[in-house]
Amino acid sequence: MTGAARTRGRTGRRPGASDTRSRVLLAARTTFGDRGFEAATIRGIALRAGVDPALVHHYFGSKQQLFVAAMEFPFDPALMVSRLLVGPREELGDRFVRFILELWDTPAVRSLLLGGVRSASTDPVAAGMLRQLLAEGPFLALARAIDRPDAALRATLAGSQLIGLAIARYVVAVEPLASVSTETLVRALGPTVQRYLAGDLTDAEKVTGSTQASAAPT
Amino acid sequence: MTGAARTRGRTGRRPGASDTRSRVLLAARTTFGDRGFEAATIRGIALRAGVDPALVHHYFGSKQQLFVAAMEFPFDPALMVSRLLVGPREELGDRFVRFILELWDTPAVRSLLLGGVRSASTDPVAAGMLRQLLAEGPFLALARAIDRPDAALRATLAGSQLIGLAIARYVVAVEPLASVSTETLVRALGPTVQRYLAGDLTDAEKVTGSTQASAAPT
Repeated sequence: MTGAARTRGRTGRRPGASDTRSRVLLAARTTFGDRGFEAATIRGIALRAGVDPALVHHYFGSKQQLFVAAMEFPFDPALMVSRLLVGPREELGDRFVRFILELWDTPAVRSLLLGGVRSASTDPVAAGMLRQLLAEGPFLALARAIDRPDAALRATLAGSQLIGLAIARYVVAVEPLASVSTETLVRALGPTVQRYLAGDLTDAEKVTGSTQASAAPT
Repeated sequence: MTGAARTRGRTGRRPGASDTRSRVLLAARTTFGDRGFEAATIRGIALRAGVDPALVHHYFGSKQQLFVAAMEFPFDPALMVSRLLVGPREELGDRFVRFILELWDTPAVRSLLLGGVRSASTDPVAAGMLRQLLAEGPFLALARAIDRPDAALRATLAGSQLIGLAIARYVVAVEPLASVSTETLVRALGPTVQRYLAGDLTDAEKVTGSTQASAAPT
């Protein structure tokens, strides 16, 4: 908070600059989370934050720039990866799925993730951020730590399952997937993520089997 | 086509009603596919179809109603399910993944699917359609045909992986997932879908002993 902001703060008439920024970012996360990038407006975000729209433009520039600022993750990805690598390697998939579900169960993070996922479907900048998260984020760091061939493909396969879970469970909320427990999902999805990151993707049993011809399109 | 439309059609000045409807539906699919529901406009769709926006309203009503009409699937889900059930039961996952990838590789269907996935992130009606597809569509029919417990959960788990694939490969187009071959994806995702529909979701090996954990489906 700046000196000027502190001085004003005491009057109770106007919040300080850093307080205003925080409120706008929180309002932006909630609005992008509820409505996605396309439908969210600077005016609506300003209204929710209780500030003048001009102030939002002043601090953050365009809606696009505000989105990028609002979507900044509240945790350190490198720290997250090193924590996930602690424990039996064969249970990494379970730990990763449990960690992702815990993130979604944290209300502030859920808004952030919903905003990212919703907006990525229509907005190129948001799509670019999701693409980068899938291609270069924790997924790749985990796949690389496992040290099997095709780390980049493994990372995006794991990401595809976890993005799909996000859409089905949180965005469209399809039952029973939306209501089952974290443990049920860890048991269901953990082995999938484990196999994508560390398992055999070529599925050698199947391609060497005698019935392979019947796998042709039906 | 109505009699009046046929009569006008012969003059070459104005397309017949069913031709106009088809052109509007095609334009709507392409526009919803490119931009999603929120950013698509009746005006833009009319422009692409080469018709007056008033005509679009006349034939289809609101943008919401046009969306529902445009998203109608060009194939019979029941027929699709019965075809997928032909062949070795243990390769159903592979067949399903291959079938879904072939749908995405058909340009007209790709627009339709992109429109549905993109729009479901922000529009309640589109989200409801995707929810229904996941909860009651081919996923559930396949899970029921397999006849294992928890068919509804199995259906939505399989759906979550295939929706996630759609987002990662076609909407945000993350590499290398966006460029790998159909066969690579069938080998990577087929076993996942197979396990969700027909495998052991409780992962008994894992809950009964730590040393067996590496026996998780690979």
